Amino acid sequence: MEQEFIQWLCRRAGSHPQVQLGVGDDAALLRCAPDRELVVTTDLLTDGVDFLLGECDAARVGRKALAVNLSDLAAMAAEPIAAFVSLALPAHDAGALARALYEGLIPLAEEFRVALAGGDTNTWHGDLVISVTAVGQTSPAGALRRDGARPGDLILVTGDLGGSILGKHFDFVPRVAEALLLHQRYKLHAGIDISDGLSLDLARLATASHCGAAVNLQSVPISAAALACAQTGPPSCSALDHALADGEDFELLLAAPPEAGRQILDDQPLSVPVTCIGRFVAEPGLWQLTPQGSLQPLPPRGWLHRENDR
Amino acid sequence: MEQEFIQWLCRRAGSHPQVQLGVGDDAALLRCAPDRELVVTTDLLTDGVDFLLGECDAARVGRKALAVNLSDLAAMAAEPIAAFVSLALPAHDAGALARALYEGLIPLAEEFRVALAGGDTNTWHGDLVISVTAVGQTSPAGALRRDGARPGDLILVTGDLGGSILGKHFDFVPRVAEALLLHQRYKLHAGIDISDGLSLDLARLATASHCGAAVNLQSVPISAAALACAQTGPPSCSALDHALADGEDFELLLAAPPEAGRQILDDQPLSVPVTCIGRFVAEPGLWQLTPQGSLQPLPPRGWLHRENDR
Repeated sequence: MEQEFIQWLCRRAGSHPQVQLGVGDDAALLRCAPDRELVVTTDLLTDGVDFLLGECDAARVGRKALAVNLSDLAAMAAEPIAAFVSLALPAHDAGALARALYEGLIPLAEEFRVALAGGDTNTWHGDLVISVTAVGQTSPAGALRRDGARPGDLILVTGDLGGSILGKHFDFVPRVAEALLLHQRYKLHAGIDISDGLSLDLARLATASHCGAAVNLQSVPISAAALACAQTGPPSCSALDHALADGEDFELLLAAPPEAGRQILDDQPLSVPVTCIGRFVAEPGLWQLTPQGSLQPLPPRGWLHRENDR
Repeated sequence: MEQEFIQWLCRRAGSHPQVQLGVGDDAALLRCAPDRELVVTTDLLTDGVDFLLGECDAARVGRKALAVNLSDLAAMAAEPIAAFVSLALPAHDAGALARALYEGLIPLAEEFRVALAGGDTNTWHGDLVISVTAVGQTSPAGALRRDGARPGDLILVTGDLGGSILGKHFDFVPRVAEALLLHQRYKLHAGIDISDGLSLDLARLATASHCGAAVNLQSVPISAAALACAQTGPPSCSALDHALADGEDFELLLAAPPEAGRQILDDQPLSVPVTCIGRFVAEPGLWQLTPQGSLQPLPPRGWLHRENDR
């Protein structure tokens, strides 16, 4: 990569009061706030799997690569501090592509006050790979892990679900502020972001918490995009199916004890709706609540290529 | 990737007393030691540029991907804590390749007591890309930055240099323990690891420190591999040229004030030699010291593809 690009990037890397040293040395230096834990997450996106570079704007790809990491920080109720962006760029026209990626990435970093504190920009013979590591810290409320749900907790979701392929999978807003507000103002037990589909991620949260989850299917908030997908797709796939199984909604899925959960539902303290879609139960597994109040198995389905993730 | 692989990896991920939560949630949780700074570095390696997968053992590739990051932590005199490993694996036989990479990576992580605290394992249509982010913390001596050298400081290097292509570029030992010992026991002003060639990295350190560097070419420690390269390569490229310009030695290049530097040279406190190869000077630029004690320009040369790095 030409030196000019690196200089351009350094000027636009932003800052964070806890980033003592960003780009320009062998490593970045971050100051830790006392009594906070550090939160680290990483995601790698590849052309042909996570996006089709030939069919979309590179700026949206760059934005998404950072946004999925911010969504992981949100899922832990962590405040973002810094991000590290590594690129493997196709050799032809690498400079223009790198700039285009950053044209999407930088505004999101600015919006979420994340310093671009380092990375590694490479060219090679292959297609685009973009790997982002985000570093944040817990708030005074502590980390929101996925293993704290208890039977009786309400299952809450932000926003509406399904059909992200129509655009939201690129343009979603990481629910960082929402997670921090809910975890600090109310009492939450567990959280995850819906990256691979509501039913799959709910099953993961329940499994990690050694309990089960019972969904009231009538309560699942179905997005307009899910309705559109159901209208144009195969008749066997309803809008509810899209809401249950489509990946990349990047909404929050939360376990709240009944009283706190009801308070959140009453208050509706976010700019997006919070909906109760069921409750956690002692019986392991994923269930649907019948109108009669009994439990029937609900097979988890979702975006299984992302089972890769660790 | 099959679930079996993820489970295998989780069992072998190791631990670190400051890693509260590793693989298995949306992000890892790390505890910061009081009065330390966090040090974060990342490197992305691609098939065809940083290694040729068809011509080498995948375990050495995996080892190298972590080792280059540990070398960056060493360059900051930081103690390693955790590493995050993201892979883009060719779809055919991805599981076997992933295991082979980790067979090289895990022993190095164990040796340096680094927890493998997360990552992202993907398959795709392209060739292998491996991106590692390493997190460490400064010792009580603080960070060893590259911008602290002062005119009069001695230029010290560990080990011997050149010809890493014959094997050391895979099998080098990151100088973590050496950097920590020297920075805590003696007074160092600045440091960098020699990743792109002695002359190029020395020029970088000098530039960052707003001074120059004058090398006594007779003092440069030439490796046996550099001699071998000179014997088999073009006659225009001497063993000294290899020592000055070959990349991937991953030795330490240090600025020590005269008294501390002389003490290090007397004590030789490491298991590898420490050599003085010149001194920092007020005149910006890279220089060679003539036998008469005057300065002549020394053009920096090195592994320029890594100028990509930020």
